[in-house]
Amino acid sequence: MNSKKDLGGLGALYPMPVVIVGAMDGERANYAAVAHVGILNYGQPQHLSIGLHKSHRTNHCIKATGAFSICMPSEDLVVRTDYAGIASGKREDKSKLFSTFFSPQGKAPMAQECPVCMDCGLHDVLDYGTHEIFVGEVLHTYADDSVLTDGHIDIGKLRPMLFDMGSKQYWSLGRPIAKCWEVGRGFKGE
Amino acid sequence: MNSKKDLGGLGALYPMPVVIVGAMDGERANYAAVAHVGILNYGQPQHLSIGLHKSHRTNHCIKATGAFSICMPSEDLVVRTDYAGIASGKREDKSKLFSTFFSPQGKAPMAQECPVCMDCGLHDVLDYGTHEIFVGEVLHTYADDSVLTDGHIDIGKLRPMLFDMGSKQYWSLGRPIAKCWEVGRGFKGE
Repeated sequence: MNSKKDLGGLGALYPMPVVIVGAMDGERANYAAVAHVGILNYGQPQHLSIGLHKSHRTNHCIKATGAFSICMPSEDLVVRTDYAGIASGKREDKSKLFSTFFSPQGKAPMAQECPVCMDCGLHDVLDYGTHEIFVGEVLHTYADDSVLTDGHIDIGKLRPMLFDMGSKQYWSLGRPIAKCWEVGRGFKGE
Repeated sequence: MNSKKDLGGLGALYPMPVVIVGAMDGERANYAAVAHVGILNYGQPQHLSIGLHKSHRTNHCIKATGAFSICMPSEDLVVRTDYAGIASGKREDKSKLFSTFFSPQGKAPMAQECPVCMDCGLHDVLDYGTHEIFVGEVLHTYADDSVLTDGHIDIGKLRPMLFDMGSKQYWSLGRPIAKCWEVGRGFKGE
């Protein structure tokens, strides 16, 4: 009855939004591209996660400062976003990759070129062998007027970049399909 | 210099893939739609997270069985997927919403209609106040031939549903933009 193929313990939870994670490396801003991200809860405080291999410089920076940012690049930033994922913060100065700004009292650098930036406090670090999971609490979320509609972030204007490990490609966002908690009302089965 | 608007501690990490989470409720399969998901690490074992408000029946089911599935619906399943997010497993029998199959020795029901299904063992439960975060280890990933290209899951064929809280809409996947770890090579700044 089940005609599906067993691909083993493959992670297939794609696509995921690509983000730029900012953290201070001493006096210098560092930016890294990350797509293994997550939403933990829904509410206040709002907790988000980013998963990073322990080899990354960003891990050290986040632990040293207790702060990081999660910035959402638009698809027109694909070249420098990909570069932020290729170039190592251990060997290269990525502080000029974006124009840096901070929250008042904020400790995490944010990328002005990204239309949406979340300033996060470090809530927890989870040890997953080769990886560390950084759980952030969103303190301030900044958005350009150009991506707002009636005061809300409009992802149709933001045009976020989506990451897929299967194709090793970035994908664009498509179109709205249907309204949530509405299109399924009255479903009675086939 | 920074002209962005401060929207407070708003979670803006969208869109996220919508999944159907399957878990046994006694002898009966239960299915729920979840979009607050995450990828923790990358490798084997592969760990994924789903965040669920404690009021959901699914939380009880996962803790009682130590198992759940993460199934990826295509956009043509939008009506029943949305229904799975509206109807409460406490009051309604959602076992017939999908055709159930299991892994050999598997304890979590999977939705045959979803082209990709991941059978997960419960690795950890994180307490986040109103929410519980269920960390799963992917044991088996099943995929329909119709969504495979050269043996890999092809999200262009899968057509996953994406969730956005800002617009409260489901969105489709767009097109490939560029190759990862390639388009940014040679970036030298502006």
